[in-house]
Order: sequence, then structure tokens, then C-alpha cells
Amino acid sequence: MYIGFSETETFLRNCEDAVIITHRNPDGDCIGAGFGLQDILSQMGIRSRVVCSDEFPSRYAFMTNGSNKYGDFEPKTVIAVDIADVKLMGDYEQIYGDKVQLCIDHHISNKNYAEKTLLHADATAACEIIYDLAKFMGVKITKHCATCLYTGIATDSGCFKYDCTTPRAHEIAAEMMRSYDINFARINRYMFDVKSRGRLMLESKISDLMEEKLGGRLVIVAVTQKMMKDMGVSMEELEGFAPLTIQLENTEVGILMREREDGVFKCSFRSAYDVNVSEICQLLGGGGHAKAAGCTLDCDIAEAKKLLTHTVERALSE
Amino acid sequence: MYIGFSETETFLRNCEDAVIITHRNPDGDCIGAGFGLQDILSQMGIRSRVVCSDEFPSRYAFMTNGSNKYGDFEPKTVIAVDIADVKLMGDYEQIYGDKVQLCIDHHISNKNYAEKTLLHADATAACEIIYDLAKFMGVKITKHCATCLYTGIATDSGCFKYDCTTPRAHEIAAEMMRSYDINFARINRYMFDVKSRGRLMLESKISDLMEEKLGGRLVIVAVTQKMMKDMGVSMEELEGFAPLTIQLENTEVGILMREREDGVFKCSFRSAYDVNVSEICQLLGGGGHAKAAGCTLDCDIAEAKKLLTHTVERALSE
Repeated sequence: MYIGFSETETFLRNCEDAVIITHRNPDGDCIGAGFGLQDILSQMGIRSRVVCSDEFPSRYAFMTNGSNKYGDFEPKTVIAVDIADVKLMGDYEQIYGDKVQLCIDHHISNKNYAEKTLLHADATAACEIIYDLAKFMGVKITKHCATCLYTGIATDSGCFKYDCTTPRAHEIAAEMMRSYDINFARINRYMFDVKSRGRLMLESKISDLMEEKLGGRLVIVAVTQKMMKDMGVSMEELEGFAPLTIQLENTEVGILMREREDGVFKCSFRSAYDVNVSEICQLLGGGGHAKAAGCTLDCDIAEAKKLLTHTVERALSE
Repeated sequence: MYIGFSETETFLRNCEDAVIITHRNPDGDCIGAGFGLQDILSQMGIRSRVVCSDEFPSRYAFMTNGSNKYGDFEPKTVIAVDIADVKLMGDYEQIYGDKVQLCIDHHISNKNYAEKTLLHADATAACEIIYDLAKFMGVKITKHCATCLYTGIATDSGCFKYDCTTPRAHEIAAEMMRSYDINFARINRYMFDVKSRGRLMLESKISDLMEEKLGGRLVIVAVTQKMMKDMGVSMEELEGFAPLTIQLENTEVGILMREREDGVFKCSFRSAYDVNVSEICQLLGGGGHAKAAGCTLDCDIAEAKKLLTHTVERALSE
């Protein structure tokens, strides 16, 4: 059942001992939403625990450190944040998948798996919804809470860069800077500018691998199992490099091909402008969003590149 | 003489045939301010021409194209935007350096060279001041004007990432998105994400050249004349790479050393956190801002690195 702020407030004011579930491969938005909500519940006198099937990466320590302060308790309330589908809970799907009482989310693709769902599909981030919810409820927002919520909004919007950025995201950022003295420049340095030596090396290798097709309108980066072994990088680590396929000016579609151990190619598409890559991927048995989608291809690398090029070419000529 | 919005409005309402001067090596803020102000004057029935001693780079064409539509006329009013010092006018210093009637600027270092100066030293960008001025005057802001002013705010703040970003910058961005339907995601792609093949190659070369000193707290990138020739890159082109010296997590100070043709090293400092690099550069006969400063060193490369390392080490231990 979809609910609004008022019913969400009633639910939260009457809950106790909550577990807040974030999605696997946690990012700035689900971590910010989880720990931001924990702070808000704490202000309301409600203890909670934020959980994730994966470890929280150390770069988010400024949000996660010292926050799970209530020790162990048997949860009486189950809340999911920024999770569109129970499958994204990882190991927690088995425990809580069919027991979620409240879900707070901004994904249009939300599967409506929870008893009650506060869904704002036009929000930049789950953190945007949680900030507005806290204001609606009149609960005090601490500096730590503001830091968490700002981080979620900044990371999901690419620091206010991408299409999904709402005017409300900017307004919230302004309020947070005026009222809560958050160290936004340092947050942004950690979230966007700081790289490891390994990441730097990989980025330059990815750039070397860019193959321009269709007069540069399509860029393909293909990484085989052997290359991953040589570079010392896993399939998962490579995933974050898909946006680099569209960094050349004339590129309209970028594809990162990663060979799985079984020889099948996982293809991650990015659209720089107006091409709907979800539609292209559907033609190849995949799917996704208009600007980020994917498919898998079970053929050899040359054939796969040919098929991808041909399919994109047809889409571009339409 | 420093003036406020009211006196600036009086000046603008009574001016005619204005030349708007932007600084040499033009960036998003001075171009946005120049062409944004031209639009505003046009709404007030005043014709103007935006000039620059250097050509406007093609990546800013969405602001500059078709905007100098009034042809040639003999200017009766001289306005400077985003220019702290007449020296920054390049070739226009000789013609207009002592004739500027109105300067609109946000640099604390403004030399007060104009008859009247509208200076908001705490503004993110000159474009932030010009937007608020237009609202104050009640002049209609066109979509093109909003596009120009957004671009200036976004580029000077690193897309709302850096310390210099004000809450007001976010509020203005929100208003622009709500009221003027600007294509901010496309602007941001061009300003921040798109790179040329050459730029990509250079970035990976710069990363290869990073030398970590003082346990990684200092990074030095030294580029000699010979290396520039081998890479096919000029002193000026290299300038934009200084921020890359602080992209490793533990780096506090980054220095880009560029050898001039006369063998002297130009050193560009960047501070990642709290170290004041302006103070360090002053010790070496240079100067600048707390987070970005510079000096020149007339000695051989090994000696220069030693001196830089020693001076930064002393500053870090204080």
C-alpha cells in the first residue's frame, strides 16, 4: 500500500526496536538514508540498527562509524530504505524479505513488496524523501543526520550534475548548508575526487581500450577474463567504469563488455544524450533505464561487437 | 567606489552602447556573466558587445553563439565582469584599463580599479551576483540568460562541489530549474564530463608522473620542457591539470611543476584540506589563495623538488 508523509509519521511514532535494511553493494544514498533515518528515530526515542548484506565500504565511515550504538536487540519493526526489490537485500532477503512493514524509496521500479511504501519516484534520492519527512514530522535534524542526507542526495545526483537532480535537491542542500554547518566540500572530495592508485591506473587502461565505432557515436570497451587477470581486477570492480565509456564528446552510446568466467559477455550500456539504451537492450534480451541499461551476449567477442554495433546503428538511424 | 544593487540599477538604466569586458583565458563564469548581462541589458533596450582578448573556446558556444548580434558600434559605456585586476584584460587593458565605469565581481582581491564596483566577495560566482541583480531590477530573465548564469555558477563551484559554493548558489540553481527549464544536465556534461582523446591521454600520463613524498602527504608532478615536447602539450594546456595532483586520498598538498623555456620552474600548488598553500608559496616568493597558489623556482629540478618538499614538510609540522 502506498502511503504519504502523514501515515508514515503515524507508523514511525508508534514503532519500536527497528531494523533498517539497506541494499547490497551499498552506495551513498542507501547508507545516508539508513543512518540518517536512524538519527531521526533516535531523536524520537526509538532505537534502531542499520544492516546490509555487504560490509559498508570504508569511504563511508563518516556516516557509519559509531552509529550502530544500540547493541543487539530483537527487531520488532522492519524498515527498508532505497530498496526497489527484495532481491536487492542480499542475505537479508531470506530473513526479512516478506516482513518489511515500511519501505521508503524513490525508484519508479519499486515492486511494492512492503506492507506500506512511501514512494516518491521523482525524488533525486531516498535521502531527499527522508529529509522532507523529518521536516514534516518536526523532528530535530542533527549535524550528523544532515551530513548523511546531504551525502545521499549528492551521490545519487552526481553532485547535482545529472538529469535526475530536482530543484528540491538544491533547496535541501541550501537549507543544510545554512542550518547544519555540514562540511560539504570535504564530503564531496571523498565522494567524487579522491581515487586510489589502482583506480587511477584502471581508468587510464579503460581509456586505452576505448574503440570508437560508427564515426565515434558508439564507444565499446571490451574486457576479457584474461585482461581482468592481467590487470588484477574483478568483474564487480569494473562495473563502476561504465560511465567512462561516454566521456568523449561525440559519443552517444557507450558499452562496457565484461567477459564472465563462462565466456558470456555482460554488456553495460550508457547513453550520453537522447538515445534510449533500455530499448536497445530489450532488442538483445536485456533491459534497464533510458540512460543506463544492460544485456548479456553468449557469443565470441568479435561477433558480440558486430551485433552490438549493428543494433546501435539501427537505433541511431531511427 | 563600492556600490550596491540600487546604484548599479541606476547606472544600468541610464547607460547605452555598452562594451562588456571578460578576462583573458575566459572561463564559464566570465563568459556566463558577460553574455548573461548582455541578455539582461537587451531586455532593458540597451545594446552591448561582449569582448575578450582571447577567443571564446568552442565548448562555450552554447553561450556565445549568435549573441553578439548588434554589430559594430562605438561604446559609450565600459563594464567589466569577473575581472579583479585590469592586467587580466589582456589586450583590452590598453584600450579600456583606465576607463571602466562599472565592474561586477566576486574576487576579494579586486583592485577597485573601476569608477563603480559591485563587489560581493562571498558570492560563488560573478553570475550569482548578476542573477540577484536582475531579480532586484525586475528584468525578465530569458532561458538563454538563465543558461549562461547557471553555467557560471556551476563551473566556478565545480558543480556545487567546492568550499566556495554558497547556499544562495543552490537556491538560484533551484529557481533556474523551476522557472527557466534550462538543460542543466547537458550543460554539466559538456562542462565536467566530456574530454578529448588528448585530454584523456594527458590525464593518464600525469597520473603516471605523480611522486609521493612525506608518506604521501605531498604529491609532486614535474614536467620538463622535453616532456612537454614529447607529449605534444604546451605550458598553458598543462595548467588545468594542477587539481589532479591532489586526487589521492592521503594527499594534503599537490604541486604541479612546469619547466619554462628559460629553465625556471613554475610551481602550482593545490591544498586538499586545511593546509594554507598561499602561506607556503609566500615563503618561496609567490602567493595566491589558501587552496590554490603558486611560485617560481630558478634552480635545477632535483634541487627544486628538495626545496619544495622541505618547505611543505615544515608547514605540515606546524
